[in-house]
Amino acid sequence: MKFQIIALALAAATGISASTYAQNNDPEMLRKLYDEALVNGQCYQNLRYLCKTIGPRLSGSAGAARSVEWGKKLMESYGFDKVYLQEVMVPHWERGAKEQGVIVNGTTRTPVALAALGMSVATPKAGITAEMIELHSLKELETLGEAGIKGKIVFFNRPFDNRFIETGSAYGTAGDQRNAGPGAASKYGAAAVIVRSLTAALDDYPHTGATNYGTNKPIPAAAISTMAANKLSAMLKQKNGKPVKFFLKTNCQTLPDVLSYNVIGEIKGTANNNKYITVGGHLDSWDLAEGAHDDGTGVMQSVEVLRIFKAVGYKPKNNVRAVFFMNEENGHKGGIKYAEQAKANNEEHIAAIETDEGGFTPRGFSFEGASPEFLAGVNQKWKKLLEPYEVDRLVAGGGGTDIGPLKETQPGIKLIGFRPDSQRYFDIHHTPNDVFENVNKRELELGAASIASLVYLIDQYGLSL
Amino acid sequence: MKFQIIALALAAATGISASTYAQNNDPEMLRKLYDEALVNGQCYQNLRYLCKTIGPRLSGSAGAARSVEWGKKLMESYGFDKVYLQEVMVPHWERGAKEQGVIVNGTTRTPVALAALGMSVATPKAGITAEMIELHSLKELETLGEAGIKGKIVFFNRPFDNRFIETGSAYGTAGDQRNAGPGAASKYGAAAVIVRSLTAALDDYPHTGATNYGTNKPIPAAAISTMAANKLSAMLKQKNGKPVKFFLKTNCQTLPDVLSYNVIGEIKGTANNNKYITVGGHLDSWDLAEGAHDDGTGVMQSVEVLRIFKAVGYKPKNNVRAVFFMNEENGHKGGIKYAEQAKANNEEHIAAIETDEGGFTPRGFSFEGASPEFLAGVNQKWKKLLEPYEVDRLVAGGGGTDIGPLKETQPGIKLIGFRPDSQRYFDIHHTPNDVFENVNKRELELGAASIASLVYLIDQYGLSL
Repeated sequence: MKFQIIALALAAATGISASTYAQNNDPEMLRKLYDEALVNGQCYQNLRYLCKTIGPRLSGSAGAARSVEWGKKLMESYGFDKVYLQEVMVPHWERGAKEQGVIVNGTTRTPVALAALGMSVATPKAGITAEMIELHSLKELETLGEAGIKGKIVFFNRPFDNRFIETGSAYGTAGDQRNAGPGAASKYGAAAVIVRSLTAALDDYPHTGATNYGTNKPIPAAAISTMAANKLSAMLKQKNGKPVKFFLKTNCQTLPDVLSYNVIGEIKGTANNNKYITVGGHLDSWDLAEGAHDDGTGVMQSVEVLRIFKAVGYKPKNNVRAVFFMNEENGHKGGIKYAEQAKANNEEHIAAIETDEGGFTPRGFSFEGASPEFLAGVNQKWKKLLEPYEVDRLVAGGGGTDIGPLKETQPGIKLIGFRPDSQRYFDIHHTPNDVFENVNKRELELGAASIASLVYLIDQYGLSL
Repeated sequence: MKFQIIALALAAATGISASTYAQNNDPEMLRKLYDEALVNGQCYQNLRYLCKTIGPRLSGSAGAARSVEWGKKLMESYGFDKVYLQEVMVPHWERGAKEQGVIVNGTTRTPVALAALGMSVATPKAGITAEMIELHSLKELETLGEAGIKGKIVFFNRPFDNRFIETGSAYGTAGDQRNAGPGAASKYGAAAVIVRSLTAALDDYPHTGATNYGTNKPIPAAAISTMAANKLSAMLKQKNGKPVKFFLKTNCQTLPDVLSYNVIGEIKGTANNNKYITVGGHLDSWDLAEGAHDDGTGVMQSVEVLRIFKAVGYKPKNNVRAVFFMNEENGHKGGIKYAEQAKANNEEHIAAIETDEGGFTPRGFSFEGASPEFLAGVNQKWKKLLEPYEVDRLVAGGGGTDIGPLKETQPGIKLIGFRPDSQRYFDIHHTPNDVFENVNKRELELGAASIASLVYLIDQYGLSL
């Protein structure tokens, strides 16, 4: 209230035009968005419900269905102009009974915790026991060839490169072992694949995550913890002529595809009937945990952006949408469907912002395919405004998996990734530790306010900088 | 090794002078410092020892004595040029047996967890029961006067202002209630003071911390948790004519001062015999926890800076010191002593950097009393170099409690505060939750590398920008 009175008084006193006036009020508007998030924020309590009452929600699961239902009700409770579900068929993979893993070193049997990779096939009921070979890259498969690999269990053990400042880069460069390793090893006749967990943390949790066999014959594939990987590697180095073997038994299966939904909420634009700004995260999460940072924080921030706009009385010029995408983790069918439907409905998307890197302290945003000129422009216009909130790192970089398909169907769109601090994300990523308790209330709220601020600026000024 | 060969080849090929050559290598040198911290870092394992084997180490305690002994040995093990203890007399306050606190609302007695404030006096053995009055500022004491306060227990309940982006500002503005509240209330005849814990977190831990009575008569003073404070406040609002009372019993005492030490390690400068750059944190910690973030991380980062320099073969021009200050928490006698001795020894300190805001992801540095011109200079020179490490927020602001006294004895000195992310610090600050498990290895290491980088730049170019 105080802000409005001062703003009006200022406008009256200086006689500045309406458009300049709006521009001059950007600092005050950002302050209002942050105040609302930090003082009256609801994303933390919403996240608690999603994590503690609904829990794990892998595509096709009962948890996923409950999360869709609740997500829609939540959006409806905020009185957005439009709330609806968007149908999408999604894969239905189930882990089944707890997996078993044992290092068999001569007569010594060392059990290790094991997690089947998402979308992987199960072992035969009796499990698989085979000689193990440790590799550090997919390239080594070529060097060894079928002669060196056939019938063996390939153990990919290249650790995170800790020299990267952002941990996402370490994840990106180690990730081929989990994503493509099983398929690649299958080509050479491997019996199964064991992958070192994708984390810099030295802990005893196997980190799950999807694998993609491509056109190769599926073979069983599982992750072991970094501690178990180190132990196993040491045994492989110390073997006395005798091969080190590994026993694994996994019980997963892929069932027929299931009908699921993206959950969409919308505030209608006051000026641009057919233009959209989308903010989203993914509602599905791995079965092992509550999916707090991956990506409960992202969906709860997305809906919070719209709630904040309503709370402070901001009426966007363009339509602003919050999207809870389904199935990011093992197929990203929700993202594909959303892009298809945007095209089918002749919607014009100005920008899409994805928040799927955890609910940590905001650092900035990355703009996909941004030219140096574009970056210079966006920094010149907005860096100073975002600096007081310490979210002014505006760089080139990826947008996100869910919004990625919009690139094809929306030629003019800018894809933007929300970039929080990255240091803790992969400690808990895809493990039972990804729980509500590991989310900090203020960090989460600051993220929501940061995204709201960027959406506000895009809504006001567009991205043709 | 690779870096050195390339660098020498470059220098040979271009024929650039030695000094230009050094300047051009700054990006490579920073990269080396970070690589050493992130790949071979030792601060995390050192912190584990300090927290888990030594534990709490309030000034004058046996833990503090053990930490001094161990700290010296640790520095000696790294082969610094000089390692020594600096004598300092410190206060010796003890909490004694666990405190008791009970809200007495008519016939309903609600026990609440309570922590005596550091340096406070105990209640009589039977405790104190008195009517309670809730205030939100020290100013209200004046308004109410002795008539409204005498014989009552004053309850200071002004919460953190969550609108601040950096939590240190919220702590700063709420802090007078704990620091000066008991002394101020004593002036008006209050029987005791209860303070709402200084945190934004809604939890059930009382956060301790020092109070300073000034010249006022000491009265018992203790903190209750934010949850207990909310509960108490609700009862005070709902009272039906009958006063809400509070019972507290504290058992603390202040014993005679004790001989303790600052622990100092030094790498001799190659050029400037009598010039110093000091990096430090405080070794003492509150009795309730392990003092992980406050300030185990700071001391372990300080010694890590010198270790990194030795490991990468960097020989500073100026003397570089790591200082484990004693007694920051309840007297800062160590900081005062260090400044006195620097003057007595005619040392010339160029800069002192304090790390006492937790071992979280680095964001930048604050320069005490920095003019706009100085800030512009330091940003122009170094911001680009620090940007890849996301520690380029170079702003005006405080240095720190321990290095503060150097301002008086070292006229030319620049005092600098290391500024990590602030969001989680006050969740655990001065509580049993300030433990090793709440420190992230990479965040800690990035901090050490950031400080090492700034020390390197100051050593190379000074601060007369």
